[in-house]
Amino acid sequence: MLRTHTCGELRLADANKDVILCGWLHRSRDIGTIGFIDLRDRYGITQLSFDKNRDNEIFEKARKLGREFVLQIKGKVAERSSKNDKMPTGDIEVHVKEITVMNESKTPPFTIETETDGGDELRMKYRYIDLRREIVRKNLELRHNVTKFTRQYLDSQNFIEVETPVLIKSTPEGARDFVVPSRLNEGQWYALPQSPQTFKQLLMVSGFDRYYQIVKCFRDEDLRADRQPEFTQIDCEMSFVEQEDILLMFEGLIKHIFKNVKNLDFDKFERMSYEDAMKNYGSDKPDLRFDMKFVYLDNVARGYGFSIFDNAETIIAINVKQAANFTRKQIDELTEYVKRQQIGAKGMIYCRVLEDGSLKSSVDKFYDSNALQKWAKACNAEKNDLILVLSGDLHTTRKQMNELRLEVAKMQGLRNAEIFYPLWVTDFPLFEFDEENNRWHAMHHPFTSPKPEDFDLLKSNPAKIKANAYDLVINGVEIGGGSIRIHNRQLQQQIFATLGFSAEQAQEQFGFLINAFEYGAPPHGGIAFGLDRLCSILGGSDSIRDFIAFPKNNTGRDVMIDAPSDISPEQKKELGLI
Amino acid sequence: MLRTHTCGELRLADANKDVILCGWLHRSRDIGTIGFIDLRDRYGITQLSFDKNRDNEIFEKARKLGREFVLQIKGKVAERSSKNDKMPTGDIEVHVKEITVMNESKTPPFTIETETDGGDELRMKYRYIDLRREIVRKNLELRHNVTKFTRQYLDSQNFIEVETPVLIKSTPEGARDFVVPSRLNEGQWYALPQSPQTFKQLLMVSGFDRYYQIVKCFRDEDLRADRQPEFTQIDCEMSFVEQEDILLMFEGLIKHIFKNVKNLDFDKFERMSYEDAMKNYGSDKPDLRFDMKFVYLDNVARGYGFSIFDNAETIIAINVKQAANFTRKQIDELTEYVKRQQIGAKGMIYCRVLEDGSLKSSVDKFYDSNALQKWAKACNAEKNDLILVLSGDLHTTRKQMNELRLEVAKMQGLRNAEIFYPLWVTDFPLFEFDEENNRWHAMHHPFTSPKPEDFDLLKSNPAKIKANAYDLVINGVEIGGGSIRIHNRQLQQQIFATLGFSAEQAQEQFGFLINAFEYGAPPHGGIAFGLDRLCSILGGSDSIRDFIAFPKNNTGRDVMIDAPSDISPEQKKELGLI
Repeated sequence: MLRTHTCGELRLADANKDVILCGWLHRSRDIGTIGFIDLRDRYGITQLSFDKNRDNEIFEKARKLGREFVLQIKGKVAERSSKNDKMPTGDIEVHVKEITVMNESKTPPFTIETETDGGDELRMKYRYIDLRREIVRKNLELRHNVTKFTRQYLDSQNFIEVETPVLIKSTPEGARDFVVPSRLNEGQWYALPQSPQTFKQLLMVSGFDRYYQIVKCFRDEDLRADRQPEFTQIDCEMSFVEQEDILLMFEGLIKHIFKNVKNLDFDKFERMSYEDAMKNYGSDKPDLRFDMKFVYLDNVARGYGFSIFDNAETIIAINVKQAANFTRKQIDELTEYVKRQQIGAKGMIYCRVLEDGSLKSSVDKFYDSNALQKWAKACNAEKNDLILVLSGDLHTTRKQMNELRLEVAKMQGLRNAEIFYPLWVTDFPLFEFDEENNRWHAMHHPFTSPKPEDFDLLKSNPAKIKANAYDLVINGVEIGGGSIRIHNRQLQQQIFATLGFSAEQAQEQFGFLINAFEYGAPPHGGIAFGLDRLCSILGGSDSIRDFIAFPKNNTGRDVMIDAPSDISPEQKKELGLI
Repeated sequence: MLRTHTCGELRLADANKDVILCGWLHRSRDIGTIGFIDLRDRYGITQLSFDKNRDNEIFEKARKLGREFVLQIKGKVAERSSKNDKMPTGDIEVHVKEITVMNESKTPPFTIETETDGGDELRMKYRYIDLRREIVRKNLELRHNVTKFTRQYLDSQNFIEVETPVLIKSTPEGARDFVVPSRLNEGQWYALPQSPQTFKQLLMVSGFDRYYQIVKCFRDEDLRADRQPEFTQIDCEMSFVEQEDILLMFEGLIKHIFKNVKNLDFDKFERMSYEDAMKNYGSDKPDLRFDMKFVYLDNVARGYGFSIFDNAETIIAINVKQAANFTRKQIDELTEYVKRQQIGAKGMIYCRVLEDGSLKSSVDKFYDSNALQKWAKACNAEKNDLILVLSGDLHTTRKQMNELRLEVAKMQGLRNAEIFYPLWVTDFPLFEFDEENNRWHAMHHPFTSPKPEDFDLLKSNPAKIKANAYDLVINGVEIGGGSIRIHNRQLQQQIFATLGFSAEQAQEQFGFLINAFEYGAPPHGGIAFGLDRLCSILGGSDSIRDFIAFPKNNTGRDVMIDAPSDISPEQKKELGLI
């Protein structure tokens, strides 16, 4: 090795040892006759010291070194006169006797600090420098730990990791596939997997019993902020299980990860049906770090001549605790927020509960004190609380109120990244109707099993069918989802038919799976977690990019390597494309 | 759970317990009034028993069940009257009280046995049934264990696993890329990585210090038996190291895997220079499970009027121990073997050392006993040994003798899959000359560092330059290779120039790496192991396909899912391809 120690490991007990260190010149300074260099590597920072009176030549040499130079130094460990108890190596420094410059560095385009001066574009172009920043490195170390503890738990539970293929078959159902032309089979194409769904089901048919894989998946979607064309799943499947077995097994996984990565313990995760989630929070992934459950004022706010409420399908309120002191400006901001095009509310009504218990609303013209008391009572509002109300058709108003609730929570600082609230959402509908194309879609995917008691509804009323499907939500973010699968050929064919597949289409695209169900397919189910998302939640960040070593930008480009790019006519010719 | 126990865990101590098991009907038989079913799952086989006199109804029901039906049974554990000490559950059986058929099965297209009656094509088409066979399942369990112990070792050595991107940039150097059209960047293409080489080097520039990844790689090559378009590497890189550090670190990895997976210990791995390997075995991956080192007869076999030897650049012999009793037929087979078009020898000379010490050769016309004694002496041949001789130009004869040596070893049963002989081959040439295109190729890849003492030869004599490159060979199979990398911009540009890149081409394709070298790149190096190959060696098989869950055939097809396949005109239109 070119070093005897890393930059993170020397302590007072090492004093007087001769050592060799390698690393980057993080910063340097000199105070007259004494010079200092902070030498950095992945493991930490060690202070090097140079004394003009001890060795003028090396003192002068050290002064000429620039930021991010790669150095190898030899020297002796010494106790520091002024210790730094903020760093693990803060008790010592190294008196340098010899410096070798292993590589020079141009001045980096931004500072290698947690609070850097580099903008997003610049940092992405020089991602290899950005990755030197401690905060980014720690994010990737966290990711490594999440996968390590995931494997540790699943291995201990008898899961076996199996790699499924990346070059598979395009299936137009769902999101768009990335496709790959085959040279050996000209005119034909592979697709990159959106998930290993069908393969993991086949592994269950094969009797693998418990499978997992931490695996790259691909979706050619129009990219939104924070959606990546390639992403990583913790993909799992089990045989001979019911929904309850899966919830308990993977609740165990998430607890194991949080315990080992964050040293946090959880009680049994709360559960909520999709129906209740929509009713009480207007979302299938409610953020439960704070309250503000929906209150329906339908029975107490109608009949006062306020036509907006009188004509609305529903009237929904939330009680914002201790927010009666919101300024006019804050209220206006919230009103503007819900009136944004993306949210689309017509307006927002509010009612303050004042210090003396009296009520002051934006619709005092229609509602007297008695009438407003009914609102307050319905909302359990106490003094200094603020009631916010939206109205309109049920579906839209719920969605709008969900947005408002989240925005108010943000204003109040309730979306605390250090608090974690996991929640299972269950009993999803099996189908949703696509008005535009006049057809049914699978809400989860076409392999999801309906609840057995709902089998009969398949022909009569598909909208009513509940699925054995579940999502794990943490802090309002869906980090995993899964279902009990269909393992019966007839039922699978019926589902495909409901989804508008002809028998031929179903056979062509998924024949291998449908056929497999005829050779002893066991009952099975599973779940997949978004690793990028799980890491960002654990790391307290909204952005998954911070947890990906080499992410792509919003147009799917890697600006560092400049991909995608042109390929040569020879390549195209070989592939039969021109 | 739908079961209380697996089919592999019940023991005599469980007698009288009420249990629920799930699994597949592996086989059934009845002997008059008693029926038996072997119920199988991933964990083992449990015998179920049915007594007509105890319960006629269930006895009759059990008789009607077919092979591979999926069953859930309830019953009581009982001691067997005739125990089977060949199976862990052989002391007990389960007296069945209740059977539920969870799924039926058609008769499988081949038997679910280690020695199956299914041919290759059929087993690939029904891979999900093939995977039920114990031997195939054990191969994938072995693979899981290899990755588990790999991670365990590398984690303990402070390596951090980092995922590098799959959608990258096409670089025409090396093998052919698989490419992926970008919809959002019309006319441009991603490529799938042949290895994460440049990314792992960037991670070293970033200071990650020790990186690994178990990662899918892709090469669009013409497929030979046992080469897959997608394959998996254990990819590793370290900073501040010299070759010796890497050899020791990864010798440790391989020892850790063999210890944990096969319970085998190794001494320090033997090392051999490329030059010696070629001289003594005619191969850069010699199989050292057996001897038969090359003996050059140039000084003892010329000048006897045998023009073939007299005119040959070299004459190479091997001593096949205790093979003087090879029959005429065996000798003829070997001769035919080396005369095959792929090997291309003109003929083979042999000389037997008989029981009485006398010598009998195929060229007695030219060589008398004294002359042959010189051969025997050079070869250290003793009685009952067989000397085989090939001659011709040096390069070709070495290659032919390598093939002959391996074939003889096979004949003698010396290629024993249960013996493992690891070997480091070092000091590879940096370049090889491509006569056809009149240019230099990088023998390893263009990022490999020349040995510092050879820097001066870059302009004068590239053929002479040795690289800091090394391969790990086990039993004649290359299972890993790596090198110390270049970390200096000028040197990297010089190498690209020698390889025939213009400065512009080098910048366009690898500019991101060359530029990164200007921002403080540390000395670094690494290695990559072929996981599929490593598993096949450990599993004692020649075929990597046996260790891949869903392999592709020789034309790159997945015959189970029928990929690649057509894609729709809409898909092509969206991608700007039509």
